[in-house]
Amino acid sequence: MKAVALGGGHGLHATLTALRRVTDDVTAVVTVADDGGSSGRLRRELEDLLPPGDLRKAMAALAGQDEASRLWTSLFKHRFGGTGALAGHAVGNLVIAGLLEQLGDPVAVLDLTSRLLGVQGRVLPMSNDPLDIEADVMGLDEDPTDVRRIRGQVAIATTPGLVQRIRLTAPNGRPAGCPEAVQAVLDADVVVLGPGSWFTSVLPHLLVPELLDALVHTRAKKVLVLNLVPQPGETAGFSPERHLDVVCEHAPELKVDAVIADVDSVPTPDRLTRAASALGARTHLAKIAAPDAAERHDPEALAGCLRQVVEETGVGGTSPWR
Amino acid sequence: MKAVALGGGHGLHATLTALRRVTDDVTAVVTVADDGGSSGRLRRELEDLLPPGDLRKAMAALAGQDEASRLWTSLFKHRFGGTGALAGHAVGNLVIAGLLEQLGDPVAVLDLTSRLLGVQGRVLPMSNDPLDIEADVMGLDEDPTDVRRIRGQVAIATTPGLVQRIRLTAPNGRPAGCPEAVQAVLDADVVVLGPGSWFTSVLPHLLVPELLDALVHTRAKKVLVLNLVPQPGETAGFSPERHLDVVCEHAPELKVDAVIADVDSVPTPDRLTRAASALGARTHLAKIAAPDAAERHDPEALAGCLRQVVEETGVGGTSPWR
Repeated sequence: MKAVALGGGHGLHATLTALRRVTDDVTAVVTVADDGGSSGRLRRELEDLLPPGDLRKAMAALAGQDEASRLWTSLFKHRFGGTGALAGHAVGNLVIAGLLEQLGDPVAVLDLTSRLLGVQGRVLPMSNDPLDIEADVMGLDEDPTDVRRIRGQVAIATTPGLVQRIRLTAPNGRPAGCPEAVQAVLDADVVVLGPGSWFTSVLPHLLVPELLDALVHTRAKKVLVLNLVPQPGETAGFSPERHLDVVCEHAPELKVDAVIADVDSVPTPDRLTRAASALGARTHLAKIAAPDAAERHDPEALAGCLRQVVEETGVGGTSPWR
Repeated sequence: MKAVALGGGHGLHATLTALRRVTDDVTAVVTVADDGGSSGRLRRELEDLLPPGDLRKAMAALAGQDEASRLWTSLFKHRFGGTGALAGHAVGNLVIAGLLEQLGDPVAVLDLTSRLLGVQGRVLPMSNDPLDIEADVMGLDEDPTDVRRIRGQVAIATTPGLVQRIRLTAPNGRPAGCPEAVQAVLDADVVVLGPGSWFTSVLPHLLVPELLDALVHTRAKKVLVLNLVPQPGETAGFSPERHLDVVCEHAPELKVDAVIADVDSVPTPDRLTRAASALGARTHLAKIAAPDAAERHDPEALAGCLRQVVEETGVGGTSPWR
């Protein structure tokens, strides 16, 4: 079974960790709009650099379990100490940045580093160009209905205002989908979107025209995995159903087969079911939070839920839900 | 045939490139006193870091010729562009530095990166601790016989004065030999010292007590390869025989079997023969300069000369010269 997971950061890491328990053919499609931390510093320093951090994290989630793969994966994650110019840079980010400078083609770079880390499956960027996110945010001014334009992933993720809508900006105008990522979505049996930072890691995928088009036209079963808690900043105060509403607002043509949510994170299941229906989806509520950390998904529980959804939707055949 | 080459920088690269044409069992033993360039910046930023640059260059000389090895080798050599904090850092130096921070043991780090680069043979540091060089230099003051103490590889390599003698300083007092390097010298059939920056890359090996002891007691044939030209700064104005004299002065107990020099770089062969005799060595003069660059050894010519020396000295048996 071919699975594709779209997202970024910790959320995508959680989906990938779960998905690799379900199938050994997993492709990660990763946001490339990060402008914070080590990736942000690299983007500012090296012109036109694809931010490497989320790509590296996705590779780590799919990395091999043999000794050499584990060693390189932990090196890639290792952040330089000290108090100098390197402090805080993940070694893997520097390796990816160096390869991008040298080879140019991000897909070749990711295939090469994936081999080093023994990645089972494939990691692709959503676009071969670094992108930027722009958001309309309400509640930043004296008049709480004033809408202000905020730029950049970090600024949006931490805004004290209410995010209304996001857009992507690309160096050459229109954001172009990575062709291999578009093809992976078209060829998939199941596509998983989320969890993760909703406006800055999940929704951006729907704003790359070729990628949205592939998501609309793929015969894959489409699954949306909701967050366990609203994220301070970008989705502070958002109900689970509000998360679905903004998906509708950003990609009205997109239909989804299933929405997975943690049963303890949904205060009003009826409302969620209604919002899911608007997307064409059935809701799956299950205990998927990690027992020790309520803000993280438990990989085994999420895998179980994905397995069940795959079985019930009859991947490869006709969905019983449509 | 087990060969060990001791040195650093471009000189060691030349020896290794030649030696791999003679045998496939080559061990490089590399100086760790560099304090310039990318390595120097890393040493200043990350405490107690073994300078990675010369280690990386030695690996490159022994790297595999298959596509993957070549790609990683060229990435290791790639220096970041831009105008920021990373500009000029070789990616491989950062990978080695990250692994050193993470794993600690330099030999494990070098064995791991050597596998990545498909290294045929082994690359070892002369010591597991970063070292510093100190030199007594004459001619820096009004009275030209005054001797001043100069510290650091870069300062010594570029001094306008006349270097008299060097010493090594180690963080914990006495410089300790890397045990695997010491063992490699003891187990070798042939050991090659030089060419290279005489005071800052070649002689330091003789100032690590365990390494000198191994060089004195090994049954390997010992070969000294002279530079093609005096190096501006540290050996400006040095005759070929003066290079041998300073070896004697720094390690009086060391005997050598052969001295290889470029026939066109030796103005007074008789004097060189006398100086070599003091070391117990026979001189081998041959055309070993690269035809296009008089300051570089031609790998094939140097390999031919090393092959001849090996045959004539009867490696593994008794030297006809002693």
